[in-house]
Amino acid sequence: MEASTLRNTFIFSLLSICSISSSTTTSHSHHHHPLDPLTPQEFTLVQTIITNSYHNSNPNNLTFQYVGLDEPNKPTLLSWLSTLKTTTPPPRRAFVITRLNKQTHEITVDLSTSSIISDHIYSGHGYPLFTVEEQTTASELPMTYPPFLESVKKRGLNLSDVVCSTYSVGWYGEEKSARILRILCFYTEGTVNLYVRPVEGVTLVVDLDEMKITQYSDRFTVPMAKAGGTEYRAAKQKPPFGPKLKGVATVQPDGSGIEIAGHSIRWANWAFHLGFDVRAGPIISLASIYDLEKKTFRRVMYRGYISEMFVPYMEPTEEWYYKTFFDVGEFGFGLSAVSLEPMKDCPAHAVFMDGYYAGQDGKPVKISNVFCIFEQHAGNVLWRHTETGIPGEVIREVRPEVSLVVRMVSTVGNYDYIIDWEFKPTGSIKVGVGLTGILEVKGVSYTHTDQIKEDGHGTLVADNTIGVYHDHFLTFHLDLDVDGIGRLRTRTLCYGTPWDFIMSLAKKIFR
Amino acid sequence: MEASTLRNTFIFSLLSICSISSSTTTSHSHHHHPLDPLTPQEFTLVQTIITNSYHNSNPNNLTFQYVGLDEPNKPTLLSWLSTLKTTTPPPRRAFVITRLNKQTHEITVDLSTSSIISDHIYSGHGYPLFTVEEQTTASELPMTYPPFLESVKKRGLNLSDVVCSTYSVGWYGEEKSARILRILCFYTEGTVNLYVRPVEGVTLVVDLDEMKITQYSDRFTVPMAKAGGTEYRAAKQKPPFGPKLKGVATVQPDGSGIEIAGHSIRWANWAFHLGFDVRAGPIISLASIYDLEKKTFRRVMYRGYISEMFVPYMEPTEEWYYKTFFDVGEFGFGLSAVSLEPMKDCPAHAVFMDGYYAGQDGKPVKISNVFCIFEQHAGNVLWRHTETGIPGEVIREVRPEVSLVVRMVSTVGNYDYIIDWEFKPTGSIKVGVGLTGILEVKGVSYTHTDQIKEDGHGTLVADNTIGVYHDHFLTFHLDLDVDGIGRLRTRTLCYGTPWDFIMSLAKKIFR
Repeated sequence: MEASTLRNTFIFSLLSICSISSSTTTSHSHHHHPLDPLTPQEFTLVQTIITNSYHNSNPNNLTFQYVGLDEPNKPTLLSWLSTLKTTTPPPRRAFVITRLNKQTHEITVDLSTSSIISDHIYSGHGYPLFTVEEQTTASELPMTYPPFLESVKKRGLNLSDVVCSTYSVGWYGEEKSARILRILCFYTEGTVNLYVRPVEGVTLVVDLDEMKITQYSDRFTVPMAKAGGTEYRAAKQKPPFGPKLKGVATVQPDGSGIEIAGHSIRWANWAFHLGFDVRAGPIISLASIYDLEKKTFRRVMYRGYISEMFVPYMEPTEEWYYKTFFDVGEFGFGLSAVSLEPMKDCPAHAVFMDGYYAGQDGKPVKISNVFCIFEQHAGNVLWRHTETGIPGEVIREVRPEVSLVVRMVSTVGNYDYIIDWEFKPTGSIKVGVGLTGILEVKGVSYTHTDQIKEDGHGTLVADNTIGVYHDHFLTFHLDLDVDGIGRLRTRTLCYGTPWDFIMSLAKKIFR
Repeated sequence: MEASTLRNTFIFSLLSICSISSSTTTSHSHHHHPLDPLTPQEFTLVQTIITNSYHNSNPNNLTFQYVGLDEPNKPTLLSWLSTLKTTTPPPRRAFVITRLNKQTHEITVDLSTSSIISDHIYSGHGYPLFTVEEQTTASELPMTYPPFLESVKKRGLNLSDVVCSTYSVGWYGEEKSARILRILCFYTEGTVNLYVRPVEGVTLVVDLDEMKITQYSDRFTVPMAKAGGTEYRAAKQKPPFGPKLKGVATVQPDGSGIEIAGHSIRWANWAFHLGFDVRAGPIISLASIYDLEKKTFRRVMYRGYISEMFVPYMEPTEEWYYKTFFDVGEFGFGLSAVSLEPMKDCPAHAVFMDGYYAGQDGKPVKISNVFCIFEQHAGNVLWRHTETGIPGEVIREVRPEVSLVVRMVSTVGNYDYIIDWEFKPTGSIKVGVGLTGILEVKGVSYTHTDQIKEDGHGTLVADNTIGVYHDHFLTFHLDLDVDGIGRLRTRTLCYGTPWDFIMSLAKKIFR
């Protein structure tokens, strides 16, 4: 062991030696990297191949619930990389999940031969990602459903100011389940902050395969929360929102240090591949750092992404108990990604990248600026020491901290998740998820905490409004290859109310 | 309760209404604020007053161990502020701790009348801050101490490459104790990284009041750790240290948003007072934020500072058991503060402030650039939401995060503590302490973990070198006045090895 390792003791580093990862060096070739996400042309090809294959089986109700790259398996990819790309790359394939005649198909398509390799019907529990289109259609059904119109009238609301939204229903061990969504509605009269004015007490259930309302319940009414004071747009605030700040701009006289070739990214001593998936959002692959002493790349992580986000609410009543969202597996972090706003979601010197997914009809849909990639100069210090202990000598060594951030924002209804992958020159990777947006609230009759005599399952945050207890459990898929081929790890992070509380409520709800 | 509070739900805010704190608005008056630290002229005045008072009592061995502002008490200051400074300010006083004839004096000096208000001898446990001068003198004593010269010779070391450093001794309930320091020495041959080459096995004890070595022990020798690979200066690295990064500069076309008048600081909606104390370092007082709706300042914190940093090492042997540093109370976070390096310790647009303390002779000593104050633009998002749920309308609201950071770095021997007070426009204050510098290590005979058959009380980090288990417990004095006069809280943060481990070792060591 070298004594030089001492100076790295404070820096948690993920370092690995792996000469083969030098294959991720910058290449301006327009050939695909085998891990590149499907291109618009490839989405179209997949759609054509699958639609044609159902030509004789009345594909009127064929929907594409998921289309993405079927990644080559790890040994195959590493083997190809070890030849420094001189051999034939692994075959390019797509993995597709469709619904057809109320059945879920899992299909693998070979793009080079334009053929279907496998197509089997999935018959286990659970259903594929919801499409945007079916959620939109389902959320409009109440507007022509007489019992709902009666409920709106009974509450004295204007139908034109009511909007509805879709909610997954959870699974509680039922042997048989249907592909259903619950529908909750909100009142936009006088506000764009719809989530704070729920039409509490009314729940609808829609069967997505029938696209029909199959259950309806209107159990109670509570006073509608006030619209006043719920405006969040800065331009509409009186007095103006927040203090006025003087402007700041960053200048890079030598240009950006970020090199992007297709989906392969180089920055400082890092090289990695950035993919986009409609389910997971960003997928980081083949992350490795260049070791100046060993003159080689050392692999750190084969692949990392957020595999799931579980958001259970701690409210056991009929209107709320089922709220146990899987924001990745049900709504799609990629599908819910929003276009990032330059200068605001990301700093001025950020570089942007677009993403594509397949719509319900299989055709490609573009999300502009789905990722931003930027150098982060927060003004912090990576490492420093001032030495005055040696007679006649003063040493002051300060290394400012600079890192590279890859960001995507996924807005799943009321919540905005800011997903950051941060690469540090020390060899460590920091993952962070910022939780912002708007609370999911419950309409109640209370206007003061003194009135609440039983467990409110949340906090009174405004008149007639309870912010319901809930958590966000993030699970990361982390296939770390630190100086060699490693083991897959998953790691769950939890945000929200304290753990003890979660567990006691979880026992209550999931008993 | 206003529904508008909803949009602040994710932001932990410390807000308080207090009209009197508007008195901290910018004033370019050169009059003192009652909380301003002592000026160089005031340090000189204090020194003169005290030296003169001992004129008839042979003050040859008078030393100033602490000189600082004797702050007006809180009701007095608040009362004065409530008159909008139209009344006479509280009397300006200094609090002084001296050693004279082996006794600790606690003295209060009134600066307006140039008189000593009180002077009493402290006879309880414990001793005042160590001065830089007495530590320097003590650490040079071994160089002429024959048993030590013999130990150096026995180890084959060159005396000219040996430097020694001072260590506090802890307190284990002894009824009587002396004002002593332990001395440990290091070998700088071939390296400036002295801490990694301890002369293990040799311990000296110095009585500071006698300034004599009173105990000496040379219990064992171990091979000296190698000098190779311990260089940490970037300019000396071959190959060059770390990846090359392209430059970046920040530009503020409308100038800085930070207004400083004396020690009163205004930025965005914040107003606060920043003092410097030789013991605590930065002291934040009267922090309040301007409420645009209420058109008034609301007080958040009356006073906040780091009151102590406890650093126990988990090594029970004779050479290590006593290492239970109080880095604030024994060595002084202010006294150990280093001049910050522009562009490296703080970003280009930072503003700097100097600090002063009294040397052992009572005369003022300046630390240039002891604080930096800067706007932090990390490229993060304060709050955002994209709304696509309202038919025919897309809303995208993004508020970038900008905050103000007050930074000081205290280097206590091998460790560098980066102390940040961060003020967010939301009304919250974030305190952070970055731990960097160089590990405190123990010399051992081991060169491989296989050789370690018993508890090594640390981790083998290099040949003959163990990084000893230890912790950093930071205690904050936080007098929060959120919308009124609050209660004092203290909060302890812990960095280091896991808590369970600490507790089991603490039981072992402090039994």
